[in-house]
Amino acid sequence: MGAEIVALAGGVGAARFLSGLAEVVEPERLTIIGNTGDDMEWNGFSISPDLDTVAYTLAGLADENRGWGLRNETYHCLDGMSRYGMESWFKLGDHDLATHCFRTELLRQGVLLSEVTRRICAALGVRPRLLPATDDRLRTRVDTSEGLLDFQDYFVRRACQPEVRGIVLEGTDTARPAPGVLEAIHSAAAVIVCPSNPLISIGPILAVPGIRDALRECSGGRPVAAISPIVGGRALKGPADRMMRGLGLRPAAAAAAELYRDFVNVFVLDCVDAPEKPEVEALRMKVIITNTVMKDQAARVSLARAVISQLGGGLGL
Amino acid sequence: MGAEIVALAGGVGAARFLSGLAEVVEPERLTIIGNTGDDMEWNGFSISPDLDTVAYTLAGLADENRGWGLRNETYHCLDGMSRYGMESWFKLGDHDLATHCFRTELLRQGVLLSEVTRRICAALGVRPRLLPATDDRLRTRVDTSEGLLDFQDYFVRRACQPEVRGIVLEGTDTARPAPGVLEAIHSAAAVIVCPSNPLISIGPILAVPGIRDALRECSGGRPVAAISPIVGGRALKGPADRMMRGLGLRPAAAAAAELYRDFVNVFVLDCVDAPEKPEVEALRMKVIITNTVMKDQAARVSLARAVISQLGGGLGL
Repeated sequence: MGAEIVALAGGVGAARFLSGLAEVVEPERLTIIGNTGDDMEWNGFSISPDLDTVAYTLAGLADENRGWGLRNETYHCLDGMSRYGMESWFKLGDHDLATHCFRTELLRQGVLLSEVTRRICAALGVRPRLLPATDDRLRTRVDTSEGLLDFQDYFVRRACQPEVRGIVLEGTDTARPAPGVLEAIHSAAAVIVCPSNPLISIGPILAVPGIRDALRECSGGRPVAAISPIVGGRALKGPADRMMRGLGLRPAAAAAAELYRDFVNVFVLDCVDAPEKPEVEALRMKVIITNTVMKDQAARVSLARAVISQLGGGLGL
Repeated sequence: MGAEIVALAGGVGAARFLSGLAEVVEPERLTIIGNTGDDMEWNGFSISPDLDTVAYTLAGLADENRGWGLRNETYHCLDGMSRYGMESWFKLGDHDLATHCFRTELLRQGVLLSEVTRRICAALGVRPRLLPATDDRLRTRVDTSEGLLDFQDYFVRRACQPEVRGIVLEGTDTARPAPGVLEAIHSAAAVIVCPSNPLISIGPILAVPGIRDALRECSGGRPVAAISPIVGGRALKGPADRMMRGLGLRPAAAAAAELYRDFVNVFVLDCVDAPEKPEVEALRMKVIITNTVMKDQAARVSLARAVISQLGGGLGL
């Protein structure tokens, strides 16, 4: 087995890249640090959408067409909850619900989220190690034209329609990295920031005290790569482009790179963004130009291979 | 609208009789006092099996063939919970789960079980008033050859196989009748004890301080009828006969009648038990002999009609 690779991951975009990466390197070499800023309590359940999206995708159980949840899902319990007047805007499937029952029950017993996540992954046959960035409560809220909204309220219930004015990360003062997170970064041969929303997927991970510092230190001698979440001025998935605009940023690959300038030293641009290469290089990043649009599993593997092959012989490929 | 009729109810047998009764008298005249001794917390859910069986049956949603749960049920969440190593011996369907999510969430918010039950019935279109005997914690445990077991552990998980040595009702010292229970008995024109297990369905209701006294008082001037839960020496549903034997009682209709001797003044025997009439009459009960086996809805209606017609003109039929 070669050296460890650490990946920072949000939801769908990250999960797709990681399913390619897990074909290119031995899955057991991967440690994935997942976003918990999207987590929520809903109808009594503790839900961790990004962790689940990564786990389900790596287990080969995800509904790839839809981008979230499980394949062959049914919604009978949700229908029933709706009949009782409970909230039903979050599309909780019957199979998926089992994960939330399990998590909710264990958390209530005092088991840490990182241990719950480990057990979920073990049960589903997920081979990479998936760690939440923190076991502590961290919540992303979105300051919008309709007020300060919980993330899923903005993202799912309101379908990202409200204009974004700011991002509020609650809990970052006191959150501590989950067990294994800093250790994994310290000993990593390379770090990859997946193509996820830099503001609300990667941002909450970086906001956990200690993680960004560890990445900065890592980038002093080892490759810390990021795959652009913006292609041709747009996010392939989700509202990253609109959010960036709302915060006064250009929705451009180079602008995303700039958000990572203090700890990323390799930036992966999509071919259509090749003209931005000089701008990214000015941030002291090595630039890789390749096709980053992952329309199928072959494209995911191809992207993963392109990234890994550029990160140097230290990875033992 | 005529005077109020109060029914004491366990699970399946009671639910079937009540669905007949609700065709014979205006459903709004019925107040059903339900057993909560079978309630349990399981995989994080607060489950009230008997209340749900009554509500589902009266809503026309019950799986009549199976005797419990909802029709056209699926078990996807349960399959998932099993995959995570959670307990899966209680057959929790996806539609059914919505009821438990709703109840669990409301109880956690501090809403009383009686109010939760009212909302469930309203959402399902149940017209009779269904009250839990108590809002306080009451739990039936069964002392068996395999130790002291929680009721559902004995009943479902172990399929009533262990030999029964005793019944332990936990919480009866401090349980108070739910709001409306004593008032309903005090103002009832008649009370009917449904054909339910006298030990573990009706017993816990009677054990709530105040309820048995109210019934005794009622029986001084008004009909308090019980339908035999034993037919031909056997329980039609459930383990009543075996439990009675385990406790040193004869599994006979007259022995069941004796358990109610202090507050029941009308006892309904099945035709096959007509020979027991003198024995029941010796308990100072008026005896009605009719067919009590409810093989279909017509039989339920017929039984309800036979009972109501004998309870006197005061019922306004």
